[in-house]
Amino acid sequence: MQTLILHEFAASGNCYKIRLTAALLGLPIERREYDIMKGETRTANFLANVNANGRIPVLQIGDLFLPESNAACFYLADGTPLVPADRFDRADMLRWMFWEQYSHEPNVATLRFWHGWIGEANWTDAQRAMHPGKVAAGEAALKLMDEHLAARDWLVGESLSLADIALYAYTHVAEGGGFRLADTPNVQAWLGRIEAAPGYVPMDA
Amino acid sequence: MQTLILHEFAASGNCYKIRLTAALLGLPIERREYDIMKGETRTANFLANVNANGRIPVLQIGDLFLPESNAACFYLADGTPLVPADRFDRADMLRWMFWEQYSHEPNVATLRFWHGWIGEANWTDAQRAMHPGKVAAGEAALKLMDEHLAARDWLVGESLSLADIALYAYTHVAEGGGFRLADTPNVQAWLGRIEAAPGYVPMDA
Repeated sequence: MQTLILHEFAASGNCYKIRLTAALLGLPIERREYDIMKGETRTANFLANVNANGRIPVLQIGDLFLPESNAACFYLADGTPLVPADRFDRADMLRWMFWEQYSHEPNVATLRFWHGWIGEANWTDAQRAMHPGKVAAGEAALKLMDEHLAARDWLVGESLSLADIALYAYTHVAEGGGFRLADTPNVQAWLGRIEAAPGYVPMDA
Repeated sequence: MQTLILHEFAASGNCYKIRLTAALLGLPIERREYDIMKGETRTANFLANVNANGRIPVLQIGDLFLPESNAACFYLADGTPLVPADRFDRADMLRWMFWEQYSHEPNVATLRFWHGWIGEANWTDAQRAMHPGKVAAGEAALKLMDEHLAARDWLVGESLSLADIALYAYTHVAEGGGFRLADTPNVQAWLGRIEAAPGYVPMDA
């Protein structure tokens, strides 16, 4: 594989997903840090050369640039056991990854960012109006995962897949957004299974 | 392929994506309509047997159920020319599909729903607070597509892919959410290319 460079903000779960995927696959990856609190992903250079959408992560593969965390994980894992060989399971893996970006990340990850980086005292009126809905939607997302994991070890099929990695990233730090993982014991057990996988690296590595 | 049943609300662009993908591939698909305005996707039966997340669309394949519109499109198109054979292009297609669910649909589609189904007079205070941000984010999403399409016919590679289908669904009816397609001429030309594809079916078919 060509040289892999991750353009990232290391504390972002979306960036960590890609590092964790690479680590589980034994792929070396270079890291370039941007301070999103200082607008370093909105500079003219970043928008023109890395991502017109002004966001990290972006996975650089040689001279090609791939935004969107779950797409980058798919690129790295395509053709490996982290992507199920069965046609339905492969689509079902993507089902959880799309659900993560639509129903989990905008609630669980966003509240972690609002609490941990912006600070409640600095929230806008719009953020205050959105907060109760995001709490309820985040709790519903964690509950849905917990019920799904009641009778299974992994989100899809019989082994670890990108669905687990994508959802591990922000779930394991959900308490930073005010969520209680003690309320979802099946999720807690599943977090432990991922952390026991050969090659696992923590978020702050 | 086993019998395909689409559990849907036909006016939803997310449901239309799946019908359009099936039509372009020549796959017959049965349709089951649910009135989301009457809560028909939140019944105990729907939650237990179709989708615990209480949302449509869900693609039923024999006795298996697959939620999330873009995952259902992937299932149908896996192994066909609608999914690029090239590894980078395949991931880049997913990039646009994840971007659609994170940066386009929650703005362009949500405002169409708020205007066309809820009605501005009935918006909650939280919706009023979120409205300016969704207008700006939707306009930014359409502008990003327009700039990307300035020098290319399709979002990814040299031919129609699921990325185009996923983004066509809500873009071609964006004016229902208050957006002006006349401001994005490259997007308008691209809409026409999709509508000329063999097998194309309109949203209200």
